[in-house]
Amino acid sequence: MEFKVNSKVLEKLLSKIIPAVPNRTPMPILENFLFDIKEGALTVSATDLEIALRSSINVSADDNIKMVIPARLLYDILRTLDETQIKFETEPNSKLKLTTENGTYNLSYTSPEDFPAIPSVNEEKQIKISGSELKKAIDQTSFAMSKEDMRPAMTGTLLEFTGDGLKFVTTDGHRLVKLVNKNIKTELEEQYIIPERAISVLSKQLTDNEVKICLSKTNISFNIGDLEFISRLIGDKYPSYNSVIPLENENSMKVKTSDLLSTIKRMSLFSASSSKQVKFSIKKNNLEVSAEDIDHGSNAKEKIACEYVGEAMDIGFNTSYVNDVLSHVNGEEVIFKLHSPTKACIIEPSSIKEDEELMMLLMPVRLNN
Amino acid sequence: MEFKVNSKVLEKLLSKIIPAVPNRTPMPILENFLFDIKEGALTVSATDLEIALRSSINVSADDNIKMVIPARLLYDILRTLDETQIKFETEPNSKLKLTTENGTYNLSYTSPEDFPAIPSVNEEKQIKISGSELKKAIDQTSFAMSKEDMRPAMTGTLLEFTGDGLKFVTTDGHRLVKLVNKNIKTELEEQYIIPERAISVLSKQLTDNEVKICLSKTNISFNIGDLEFISRLIGDKYPSYNSVIPLENENSMKVKTSDLLSTIKRMSLFSASSSKQVKFSIKKNNLEVSAEDIDHGSNAKEKIACEYVGEAMDIGFNTSYVNDVLSHVNGEEVIFKLHSPTKACIIEPSSIKEDEELMMLLMPVRLNN
Repeated sequence: MEFKVNSKVLEKLLSKIIPAVPNRTPMPILENFLFDIKEGALTVSATDLEIALRSSINVSADDNIKMVIPARLLYDILRTLDETQIKFETEPNSKLKLTTENGTYNLSYTSPEDFPAIPSVNEEKQIKISGSELKKAIDQTSFAMSKEDMRPAMTGTLLEFTGDGLKFVTTDGHRLVKLVNKNIKTELEEQYIIPERAISVLSKQLTDNEVKICLSKTNISFNIGDLEFISRLIGDKYPSYNSVIPLENENSMKVKTSDLLSTIKRMSLFSASSSKQVKFSIKKNNLEVSAEDIDHGSNAKEKIACEYVGEAMDIGFNTSYVNDVLSHVNGEEVIFKLHSPTKACIIEPSSIKEDEELMMLLMPVRLNN
Repeated sequence: MEFKVNSKVLEKLLSKIIPAVPNRTPMPILENFLFDIKEGALTVSATDLEIALRSSINVSADDNIKMVIPARLLYDILRTLDETQIKFETEPNSKLKLTTENGTYNLSYTSPEDFPAIPSVNEEKQIKISGSELKKAIDQTSFAMSKEDMRPAMTGTLLEFTGDGLKFVTTDGHRLVKLVNKNIKTELEEQYIIPERAISVLSKQLTDNEVKICLSKTNISFNIGDLEFISRLIGDKYPSYNSVIPLENENSMKVKTSDLLSTIKRMSLFSASSSKQVKFSIKKNNLEVSAEDIDHGSNAKEKIACEYVGEAMDIGFNTSYVNDVLSHVNGEEVIFKLHSPTKACIIEPSSIKEDEELMMLLMPVRLNN
């Protein structure tokens, strides 16, 4: 069996698939690409059992064959080769011979029996979404996924199909982000939870191209151009997050996002590493932000201009969480909606697009004085 | 005591000094800047006891004072501040108060008694060298310094002043690099060994500006513009490296550097991780490079055009060492001068500048067949 392929064409294909190859795994077979040659098409896939990537190119082959090839070795050979024609030949004893104009490379391949099956998701339930909108939704919400395994549902991103739009929700119990894409409204209301690793790999694959999403009870697939990305879904139930979102926070403070973000970065240098606490003292037209590190005998405070409608209030937050929220809110000005120093605070960009809604929620921390 | 300074001017100064602040140290005092204000000049210095950096700016101050300030905290505050005027005020109980238009920052400072003295090198013995020539010499030789502490002299870079020129020599026993800068000839022949950390920090500070080097028995200083860089010297004797350089290697092979480097990168994927061995089979007009990894049942070989004058020869090298040499030789073509498969090989760029000489030496490894 032999087939021929241009080195740069194959390198481009493998570069799309390699993100699914795990770096460390107790199952060595996962460190391989599955090559499936059928009727002149080469389909390459890889999986870590949670996510899978698959794509195809045309090759000139004299037969059909499936084989399992060391992924990093093959990809690294191709990355260092200048553009050339490569001939792949199978030889006795599971040997694979690669030949170029100047070189010969012999490696071992494995038969495909042990390679895990990659689930295919049927196209019954499908939606289409712009790649850039999907990327934006992921980039603005993914930071708030929980890093703790205690409640598996919260380690992923919730995709919630509703009559109001497609909602992306993440929370770790201390903060919550909800982004609504109003271009995608569905009659059937359904929830799917995508694992963190899938979100992080998917974000890097997205372009401006349209994405077709197919859904089953257990898996989700994203078709991006000629690339298919499949992920298992988290089977747990997502917490009923709506109950924690306050309906009315009557005190409202508007402030320039970049000003506050810059101040928060300095306060993080002064807040105690144990509590990471930063204090907002809010008055009409004037926000004072302060932090103190008793262990190092240091403290800091800064004044920022703001527009505040409400009663004067002192409220504490975790510096890292405020930093995360402000880094992802994407707007020149941001609005903090407050009720009291012990109740959840809502943070929103001051200008909202027609087809989108973004809400971030932050739990305050108790001030220690 | 108070003084005022522009935040961006101070940030620029601190950015030059902070490379000398150690990341981890059993002596917490080294994690500070020494601020020395005298007659309207602020001199900032830092040291890790091996290297030190020092530079000055003018400030408007009402008194002279020395104080020791947490380095990273101060530098991080300045990095996040927009351009503004900062007032530094000392307060009772070793407190330092920084005030800007919008903020107040209180930190603790330490009195300077415990801060280690930074040696000054007198200007009796001094030379001048172009910053770019010094940087080039360091960049081409530093990779071959030994990483092992067994022979301290070999962990540094030898600076050898001779009548033929200023020589930069590094070796780890497996390879040796000698670069001669013929613009700097001295009557007195002397050797100085600069530690690895000094070389690596120095390389990042060098610009095209002229550098003044001052030397004592124990220390070396580099004056780069308004920055002074001081390093201790390694006190041991450098091995007499000339005895290992073969006087005549009569077989000579010329090959395109980028071709061979690209091949070597692929061979490193196939050479066994224990030996890292790569085999050169050299014939007239044809170099065959091959590697084999018996554990993984893989092997590779490539042909490269070359011009060879000498007897056909098989010789083995360590792939990483060949890769290092070819990455630093700086020339379109490179010449391998060989004697036999068990004797040192000399590698040189094929075109040599008038005022420079570069020689790399590589010990072969015994072929295992």
